[in-house]
Amino acid sequence: MAHDIDTSIMTIATPKIDNPARGPYVTDKPIPIFLDAEHGGEDMRGLEGKALYFEQAGPRDHIYFDPDKTKIAIVTCGGLCPGLNDVIRAIVMEAHYSYGVRSLTGIRYGLEGFIPRYHHDIVELTPSWVSDIHTFGGTILGSSRGPQESEEIVDALERMNVNILFVIGGDGSMKAAAAIQNEVFKRKLRISVIGIPKTIDNDINFIPRSFGFDTAVDVATMSLRCAHTEAIGACNGIGLVKLMGRESGFIAAQATLALNVVNFVLIPEAPFHLEGEGGLLPALEARLRSRNHAVIVVAEGAGQDLLTSNGKTDASGNRVLGDIGHFLQNAINTYFAKKDMSISLKYIDPSYLVRSTPANTTDRIYCGQLGRNAVHAAMTGRTNMVVACLLDHYVHLPLELVTRRRRKIDIRSEYWRSVLASTGQHLA
Amino acid sequence: MAHDIDTSIMTIATPKIDNPARGPYVTDKPIPIFLDAEHGGEDMRGLEGKALYFEQAGPRDHIYFDPDKTKIAIVTCGGLCPGLNDVIRAIVMEAHYSYGVRSLTGIRYGLEGFIPRYHHDIVELTPSWVSDIHTFGGTILGSSRGPQESEEIVDALERMNVNILFVIGGDGSMKAAAAIQNEVFKRKLRISVIGIPKTIDNDINFIPRSFGFDTAVDVATMSLRCAHTEAIGACNGIGLVKLMGRESGFIAAQATLALNVVNFVLIPEAPFHLEGEGGLLPALEARLRSRNHAVIVVAEGAGQDLLTSNGKTDASGNRVLGDIGHFLQNAINTYFAKKDMSISLKYIDPSYLVRSTPANTTDRIYCGQLGRNAVHAAMTGRTNMVVACLLDHYVHLPLELVTRRRRKIDIRSEYWRSVLASTGQHLA
Amino acid sequence: MAHDIDTSIMTIATPKIDNPARGPYVTDKPIPIFLDAEHGGEDMRGLEGKALYFEQAGPRDHIYFDPDKTKIAIVTCGGLCPGLNDVIRAIVMEAHYSYGVRSLTGIRYGLEGFIPRYHHDIVELTPSWVSDIHTFGGTILGSSRGPQESEEIVDALERMNVNILFVIGGDGSMKAAAAIQNEVFKRKLRISVIGIPKTIDNDINFIPRSFGFDTAVDVATMSLRCAHTEAIGACNGIGLVKLMGRESGFIAAQATLALNVVNFVLIPEAPFHLEGEGGLLPALEARLRSRNHAVIVVAEGAGQDLLTSNGKTDASGNRVLGDIGHFLQNAINTYFAKKDMSISLKYIDPSYLVRSTPANTTDRIYCGQLGRNAVHAAMTGRTNMVVACLLDHYVHLPLELVTRRRRKIDIRSEYWRSVLASTGQHLA
Amino acid sequence: MAHDIDTSIMTIATPKIDNPARGPYVTDKPIPIFLDAEHGGEDMRGLEGKALYFEQAGPRDHIYFDPDKTKIAIVTCGGLCPGLNDVIRAIVMEAHYSYGVRSLTGIRYGLEGFIPRYHHDIVELTPSWVSDIHTFGGTILGSSRGPQESEEIVDALERMNVNILFVIGGDGSMKAAAAIQNEVFKRKLRISVIGIPKTIDNDINFIPRSFGFDTAVDVATMSLRCAHTEAIGACNGIGLVKLMGRESGFIAAQATLALNVVNFVLIPEAPFHLEGEGGLLPALEARLRSRNHAVIVVAEGAGQDLLTSNGKTDASGNRVLGDIGHFLQNAINTYFAKKDMSISLKYIDPSYLVRSTPANTTDRIYCGQLGRNAVHAAMTGRTNMVVACLLDHYVHLPLELVTRRRRKIDIRSEYWRSVLASTGQHLA
Repeated sequence: MAHDIDTSIMTIATPKIDNPARGPYVTDKPIPIFLDAEHGGEDMRGLEGKALYFEQAGPRDHIYFDPDKTKIAIVTCGGLCPGLNDVIRAIVMEAHYSYGVRSLTGIRYGLEGFIPRYHHDIVELTPSWVSDIHTFGGTILGSSRGPQESEEIVDALERMNVNILFVIGGDGSMKAAAAIQNEVFKRKLRISVIGIPKTIDNDINFIPRSFGFDTAVDVATMSLRCAHTEAIGACNGIGLVKLMGRESGFIAAQATLALNVVNFVLIPEAPFHLEGEGGLLPALEARLRSRNHAVIVVAEGAGQDLLTSNGKTDASGNRVLGDIGHFLQNAINTYFAKKDMSISLKYIDPSYLVRSTPANTTDRIYCGQLGRNAVHAAMTGRTNMVVACLLDHYVHLPLELVTRRRRKIDIRSEYWRSVLASTGQHLA
Repeated sequence: MAHDIDTSIMTIATPKIDNPARGPYVTDKPIPIFLDAEHGGEDMRGLEGKALYFEQAGPRDHIYFDPDKTKIAIVTCGGLCPGLNDVIRAIVMEAHYSYGVRSLTGIRYGLEGFIPRYHHDIVELTPSWVSDIHTFGGTILGSSRGPQESEEIVDALERMNVNILFVIGGDGSMKAAAAIQNEVFKRKLRISVIGIPKTIDNDINFIPRSFGFDTAVDVATMSLRCAHTEAIGACNGIGLVKLMGRESGFIAAQATLALNVVNFVLIPEAPFHLEGEGGLLPALEARLRSRNHAVIVVAEGAGQDLLTSNGKTDASGNRVLGDIGHFLQNAINTYFAKKDMSISLKYIDPSYLVRSTPANTTDRIYCGQLGRNAVHAAMTGRTNMVVACLLDHYVHLPLELVTRRRRKIDIRSEYWRSVLASTGQHLA
Repeated sequence: MAHDIDTSIMTIATPKIDNPARGPYVTDKPIPIFLDAEHGGEDMRGLEGKALYFEQAGPRDHIYFDPDKTKIAIVTCGGLCPGLNDVIRAIVMEAHYSYGVRSLTGIRYGLEGFIPRYHHDIVELTPSWVSDIHTFGGTILGSSRGPQESEEIVDALERMNVNILFVIGGDGSMKAAAAIQNEVFKRKLRISVIGIPKTIDNDINFIPRSFGFDTAVDVATMSLRCAHTEAIGACNGIGLVKLMGRESGFIAAQATLALNVVNFVLIPEAPFHLEGEGGLLPALEARLRSRNHAVIVVAEGAGQDLLTSNGKTDASGNRVLGDIGHFLQNAINTYFAKKDMSISLKYIDPSYLVRSTPANTTDRIYCGQLGRNAVHAAMTGRTNMVVACLLDHYVHLPLELVTRRRRKIDIRSEYWRSVLASTGQHLA
Repeated sequence: MAHDIDTSIMTIATPKIDNPARGPYVTDKPIPIFLDAEHGGEDMRGLEGKALYFEQAGPRDHIYFDPDKTKIAIVTCGGLCPGLNDVIRAIVMEAHYSYGVRSLTGIRYGLEGFIPRYHHDIVELTPSWVSDIHTFGGTILGSSRGPQESEEIVDALERMNVNILFVIGGDGSMKAAAAIQNEVFKRKLRISVIGIPKTIDNDINFIPRSFGFDTAVDVATMSLRCAHTEAIGACNGIGLVKLMGRESGFIAAQATLALNVVNFVLIPEAPFHLEGEGGLLPALEARLRSRNHAVIVVAEGAGQDLLTSNGKTDASGNRVLGDIGHFLQNAINTYFAKKDMSISLKYIDPSYLVRSTPANTTDRIYCGQLGRNAVHAAMTGRTNMVVACLLDHYVHLPLELVTRRRRKIDIRSEYWRSVLASTGQHLA
């Protein structure tokens, strides 16, 4: 229930020193933001019109950690997402130039990098080393999936004398950050743990737009353009594009809005069936008979009820999804073969191209702000929190909030209505 | 004063017919939005933490105009801006496909197109004619600057039997729209006048981000990259880039944040001086002596107090600005010549390249939503209003609100602080 | 044998009229070109240092067809390739504006478009209809694979009163053009058949660089960048990219040269084996053990001897290739699983994205020249030929020459050596 | 006279050691190339159909310099050009990885870097330092204009124990390289001087396409697109674009071919006049009266006879050109003001944006080959030469050949005819 939302942020601080970063400084007075279900997620349903109050991000007049003695560690976890290097770069630059922190360490290959048995080296992060990394996609630190024992991680933090840990990662990594935090509390350590939530699916609870999403939509849109080109290049041409979106179809929906060539958009939030009235296949047939070509976009998590699941989970603990892309490819080919109707189906899966692209200008600015604000928060001794941008306000959120559930497209929203309207699709 | 803000929207409607556009429909219940001075402009100063209530944009269950008998006209005014064609396209597509309106007219070359003595033809706007126009920058309708007599314009509207007029244009055009509206009211005509505010400078009152701005920042950022490349390509290399921004430096500020190579960013809101302590030129000299290269970004309206104005105004009634770009070019060259210090200054003015670029994916989506919502509003008989996106909510705003003043960068904001921090600039 | 090469061109012309296209005109005097095996293909082996003489393309002082009475048809066949629309556009523009031809017809969906039972409509091609098509990839005419009866096609040409037929297509289509030509000769018709050879694989005999190839390499290179980003993003990350190249590995080789991140490039011309000394898998293992990441590029026709073929052919008569991409994916995963070595393999197949991209600037210029020169050739009554660019000279080639065999990478060439050198690969 | 052309290459070598770079090796047998006046320049006029023989570039079986004891220096001179960093990178990578050279030095800020009184530091060039520089435009070494005393330069080479000097620069720099070479010969030093000719104007004698040209045309083409967008955005809109091209109009001509929106292209090789019959201004007026918009492209060196020259030369010894861009801007505005015809002229000068762009894929490959072949040539003890690509063959050319004169567009060529045909321009 949204009434339980407590956006107060925990700090480990008591003694304070002057902030060497230039002001003006932000105050601790919380700022109000209206988050409806469309923007904030299901937690906000029924609370439309009620403001939530959040702590504003930014530099404060006093900090907790003495920059001379502070050691910062950064780790990137999970799948690639545009902007990871921008966040790393911003953290390093802000800590170095605004605060004078001289000890910054990059953990290699995700949480594995903390665990001795993997034998990963660590990287010293300096301004010159990171100065151009934002021109490249991916993460220069490397990443890995899956959890590691939080005891072992905190052992490593202690061994390395780390005071501040930045965890850039997805849902699972934010849960790992929470576990690390618990272990830190248990040991009564003065280590600040700050998350910067990452998800290319844009499905983080409370956060209307996560970093990298804008870039992902850009690249996904190019794939739709290609699918459209392929579709019109053959009689009864069909372009079928599978996009990311395990539980939320934001990329598919947004790219659909961007190009206006999509005829069917299939997302996890909106169930569909194949045959019979309101089914995808007859609707596709009708489209081909009237226009000779069609474009279908499917998010990877869509239509899972149509597939027989194997019930497995991957290293990150995510359910292994059935392959809806190839399933549809087969279903469509079979359907039209039965009808003896000649089609030309092109199946496009641009996922790796989408996620490994360097951030575009919009995300570059966004990631810069996230990284800088993460440093501001950490230096004041805040912990157990993430930095996020809610409707153009940079704020602090408790770690717990963002991992509580996943944000999904509200299929009763004006947004989804406009997506459907742009496709002309009428599936039931 | 912000207390005066009345966001209720005027309509000309009484009889209503069922909306053929697909629902779910939005209701007339206003939604709350917090707009602080940073996002909404000076009108909001002192009102932080107070919500304003706005009418939500979107399709409603009943409409006023009978699609069969409705004639729509579209006009684009003022300077080019990325996304104009996207807005035109979205209006045509939505009116045609969602409402079944069959009579859409494009007015050529701005408000001139209404005036018989210019002999401009008009254009019939059909889905096939507009289907690909979003791939091109500029406006396929053409544009012009400057006002025209509102009596003459309304004469033309009557002559053409126009029921709905969409005016896409800047501050001056919104004022022209208001004048047309007054004339329409005076004649007791049933013509709906809807504005879609356009400004590449992002300086519209109440509107945190105007369409085309994201694209403009994209392209401006490329120019900064070039300026940086030129600067490091010569000993004491200086890249000086003039960007748009007559009264507000948003493009300069945002592009500065995007690339992190700018050393000095000069905007209209933040006065500066050239010589002496805290002056630009000694600070530039210090930068060159320590690093051998520098990048300066100047918004076209910056430093006007340093120039002798000629007091002229252009066809749109805007004050003719002094040429700060060439002024700085000369001042810098003179300063270092006097010091016998060899420099290599490259002056870059990418303005036409910025404004004539096709909209990027983000703006394409934005413009699509604006155009579609403009049609929704108009079909219900709303008038004397604009559609806008405030912090991710599409809403209706009274025409009067957006023309009341220009939005500027709040130089006391966290935003401007972060821009300055990214430059390291300390001018006084 | 190269000694048999006859580069003389056939014409159907006798009566001549003044050329309305602006001169200066080219003469019929053949020009010499040195084509070694690397540039021209195997036919040139042993002939290095001997010049071949070709007829130059361009406008001539007299033409054969009377523009007023000339009807032109254009057909695009086979798979998509960047630049198809540019060629169509250039033909239409040149025929219309330089010669005054007013009757231009587009055949829909390849050779199928000639055959009544497919019920495809035809398209009237006008300058306004084609003016912006070069901004889109693919072919606005549509395409199809596979041959059709040349008798039926010539029936259609007669029925439509076509005087000039432009066939834009691959190897199979050039053979179809030759068959149409034979039927035309048999019926003693005065129809000129001109080919513009298309192959994204760049494997046309005698033609060092085919249109679209430059663009394809551009896009393929982006995929390699992504593969590299993915590879360094995980410990023992492997990026495996499958590119086009059924019998010739030009795209794979050229993209490898472009980015310098490829460690292994596998093409049809250079056999390789998987296990044992000089095998791919141990070499990959060595690479991972020393550097932790690797990028592999494989042309679709590479390593076919490693696969069990099903012996099938597709609609175009091309052998159906075994799926070397997934074969390698499996082989690599199996190999390292046996070794209990944890890897992270990302498989990327960008083929549709590569081929459906609009032409880049270089190809746009190239396609323009090909299209215009095709019109020049046709209007003089030349037939049974193709236009091509050999080492920056636009010339006429007999149809027979280009279909004689496929051009392949000479693995003994300086070119292939430099590709291998850029990978550091030592497979045996 | 072309009969004097001697393409034999000088070497300083006698003792030879085995080449550690991987073969197969090229032989010293010269290869024939046909260069007509269009491709090679005026020296080739009258020699069409006669082959010239050139030494092929590439690794040879024996080298002269012992990699262990070899010191290489690289210097970049003159204006920026896409691909400079690619050439630097390729030299470093090839020398390091193929030959095992461990001592590579970058000279800062052009020839100034050799002269002690400038106090420029030098840079140690390592693979890790250069590995990503190709993603940036410009030159990471910096550059400067103007000659320096060759005695002082050779003093520096001796002081630094340099064995191989790579000079990447334009016409003036190639002459400087020749002067350095003479001084080296005079002192009987064993220093190899190899040029890699750079000119964004594409005006190097004998070289059909210089590196960076393809990229420059790409970016210039975008400016033309913007000019076209601006032109159609206003009634009687005129887009006037000034492009590089001091003595040769290749960029203007090629960009014109690429976009097909240019109505007038003005280059140094083709004189024009403003008023009267066949004049630019009446032709422009006619164009506006019939179509309402126009695009003009002018190379910076065009129409110099129309301007009063000040007779000055710049630091590189180049004649200071009159400003044809602003001259035309004024002339056009004045002409139409007199006629009382309202126009809207937008003047665009994208020069710095064009030249500071990173190399595109095509140029990246080209620059890689040039850099690698420069190393191959130098290691064999060759000197007093440049590496170049002539019609897709990488060869060695004597330094003297390329500086003899500038290559220009042959306005009697089929190439220029096709450029004019694409504009429809008929100036006399």
